Amino acid sequence: MATAKLSGFPEWLPADRAVEERIIDLLKHTFELNGFAGIHTRAVEPLSALAKDGEIDKEIFAVSRLHSEGAEKNPMGLHFDLTVPTARYVVENAGHLNFPFKRYQIQPVWRGERPQDGRYREFIQADIDVIGEDTLPEHFEYEVPLVIVQAFDALGELGVPPVKVVANNRKLIEGFARGVGLENITAVLRCIDKYDKIGPQRVAELLQEEAGATSAQAEACLKLADIESATAEFAERVAALGVSNDMLDEGVEALVKLIDQAHAQSPGSVVAQLKIARGLDYYTGTVYETLLQGHESLGSVASGGRYDALARTDKRVYPGVGMSIGVSRLMSRLIGKDRVLTATREVPTAVLVAVTDEETRAEANNVARALRERGIPADVSPVASKFGKQIKFADKRGIPFVWFTDGESGHEVKDIRSGKQEAAAADEWLPPAADLWPQVVRVV
Amino acid sequence: MATAKLSGFPEWLPADRAVEERIIDLLKHTFELNGFAGIHTRAVEPLSALAKDGEIDKEIFAVSRLHSEGAEKNPMGLHFDLTVPTARYVVENAGHLNFPFKRYQIQPVWRGERPQDGRYREFIQADIDVIGEDTLPEHFEYEVPLVIVQAFDALGELGVPPVKVVANNRKLIEGFARGVGLENITAVLRCIDKYDKIGPQRVAELLQEEAGATSAQAEACLKLADIESATAEFAERVAALGVSNDMLDEGVEALVKLIDQAHAQSPGSVVAQLKIARGLDYYTGTVYETLLQGHESLGSVASGGRYDALARTDKRVYPGVGMSIGVSRLMSRLIGKDRVLTATREVPTAVLVAVTDEETRAEANNVARALRERGIPADVSPVASKFGKQIKFADKRGIPFVWFTDGESGHEVKDIRSGKQEAAAADEWLPPAADLWPQVVRVV
Repeated sequence: MATAKLSGFPEWLPADRAVEERIIDLLKHTFELNGFAGIHTRAVEPLSALAKDGEIDKEIFAVSRLHSEGAEKNPMGLHFDLTVPTARYVVENAGHLNFPFKRYQIQPVWRGERPQDGRYREFIQADIDVIGEDTLPEHFEYEVPLVIVQAFDALGELGVPPVKVVANNRKLIEGFARGVGLENITAVLRCIDKYDKIGPQRVAELLQEEAGATSAQAEACLKLADIESATAEFAERVAALGVSNDMLDEGVEALVKLIDQAHAQSPGSVVAQLKIARGLDYYTGTVYETLLQGHESLGSVASGGRYDALARTDKRVYPGVGMSIGVSRLMSRLIGKDRVLTATREVPTAVLVAVTDEETRAEANNVARALRERGIPADVSPVASKFGKQIKFADKRGIPFVWFTDGESGHEVKDIRSGKQEAAAADEWLPPAADLWPQVVRVV
Repeated sequence: MATAKLSGFPEWLPADRAVEERIIDLLKHTFELNGFAGIHTRAVEPLSALAKDGEIDKEIFAVSRLHSEGAEKNPMGLHFDLTVPTARYVVENAGHLNFPFKRYQIQPVWRGERPQDGRYREFIQADIDVIGEDTLPEHFEYEVPLVIVQAFDALGELGVPPVKVVANNRKLIEGFARGVGLENITAVLRCIDKYDKIGPQRVAELLQEEAGATSAQAEACLKLADIESATAEFAERVAALGVSNDMLDEGVEALVKLIDQAHAQSPGSVVAQLKIARGLDYYTGTVYETLLQGHESLGSVASGGRYDALARTDKRVYPGVGMSIGVSRLMSRLIGKDRVLTATREVPTAVLVAVTDEETRAEANNVARALRERGIPADVSPVASKFGKQIKFADKRGIPFVWFTDGESGHEVKDIRSGKQEAAAADEWLPPAADLWPQVVRVV
């Protein structure tokens, strides 16, 4: 059979998937503690909803029925993020939703980009968004990144390093660019977004090549992009650049508030970094990225921003703010060559019930059933081979206990790590709590 | 923005998604108790792996980069089930897996079929499969349907009706068809598979039109297809039809064992129904369907079978047996017009912390944080409106408790259902266990 590994479409082995599942569970739990409701949207959207201006359309996977006759009436594509589908979902279901609508969503997304370290063509995102009807209070801009910090704190229990959210405001960049006389704002944002990838020198060149900047204008933009601060002090450094523009002032004020408010609730968790621009075209204000400490080279593991005009009808607008955790990107580092996390076993099974001979398989089945009914994950040996082989079967999978139905004292259970074997009854015996389910642990 | 509802791509409102999530959690829990490990495979496969002989290729959605230049080197499609991707995954990762490999997988699949009641173009399947290396003991054929029954028993706690698994064996059909002189077995299976949809009369005609049967041969096949029995007694009724064929005998023997063994472990849960054929071409032995009691018109809610040749390399073969629960199909009935289940609220939030005025929002945030740290899902009022409006905000979402930071005795919490309000401390107060998280309940 065809088994071509498709580059950029990662799949994990069972033990690593257990790590991913645990991460997803912790994210869900954090999101739900904060009042976000889960939704699930279809994988496809009309191409018209995906292919906007900007460069995004290059990354889309188109979807069509293989044997459709003639042109599709509604050409479709796989969603490249979870924000666009949610915006559409909100508009479609507005009459049935209560606003502000706080939702989380954890699903794969697809992009046709060239695969690189931590960048895939199919990857799982974990999004939170808050969407208002007509208006959206700005305090949600402070709260969303703090929920993300809280989510990573929860992952910290597993051994995931802490994060730092870096934030900027598109109005600040746009106002500054306009203030120095630049007009092609889309191009300016696109150039600055490449800062970390290509470095300041090349960004300066690009600003001249693509955004029509003079070298003085490009230099001014770079001075802005270089500003970084854990406090509202960044505002003075922006002021010192001597550029005057109303939108710039508005952006600075919004970012000052964000940094101050986030600092008040969780000191040092959100810092200003004025090179943050984000690639997606729908952001209109605050933008965020998130760096995993010690793994900054991985790029942002959680990004987002405020979008005031993505979800709208002729009559209404649904402004939103959200962030998206790159679960697959995070996984690439956590289970990659410098593995950080692992699962204590590759199967859920805590107990393997040995089968003495095929004639007594029913007895083993009964033991397993009794254990399962009491919430203990149990499996039955697939073949009545020699007990040594059955113990090896458990050992290879990391199953800690093997149950025998014909020990010297009747039913006995063996901890195959210590070799200790003792009499046990399927309606009473319990494994130690730490052995009941596989655990995700830090590799030491 | 474009909000074209796409027919066949269902999306649920948050409260219904909570029902679906709960169902998925119960399925996962049952699968894990039985020792199945979770995996997640990519959504796309090479077209060559999807488009086999038979009619399957008509249902595939092709995927290509929107702006790819020229023909794709590896044309791809969205998977139409989870069995084909797992077979490929097993072959690809065989060196890292331990066999028999028991895995579960809960993901969307896509088919280009015309949408109908309970039949979608994108739908979630929950699969369990056991895959062996070279060999696979037949007892897994008895155990897989019993795990499915157990999974529906777990859903029964929510109010989902019980199920009956109906089983057949393709060797039985093929042997019988050969025994009466028919040779186009693929066509015979395809005709019989339509029994419930088009009725016996039309199947008889189709067998003549498409499988080259005489009217006597067609009639014999229908007599076989009509046989149904909760016990091994069906074998006598097959024998009474007087057809002699080795493969028929083999199929009857296998099905007798399955019914007997399943009956011994869970009486009445699996019955023989000789009209079950299944549409997918990869099954080679036992095939299963599952009917939801009282909702038989919905069709099968869990189907599968044994496939001996789907996963193979030049050197090895990986025989498997599995079943797939149609989660979306089940949902269509559970939350449809004769709604069976509902969630007690549409948000996770147990407590809404009221905000007295925007200046004291930080105090409300602190209460919410303290509650969350103790595992209580809490939200803060988005706007410091009048308390009556804030209570209404909670009520509309089904949030049972509202917290006030400036009650007569300081902090107070109100059960808005009873109106009872009492002093409370954020580091001590607990809601009743039934109110902590949304519950899924039967509609009365």
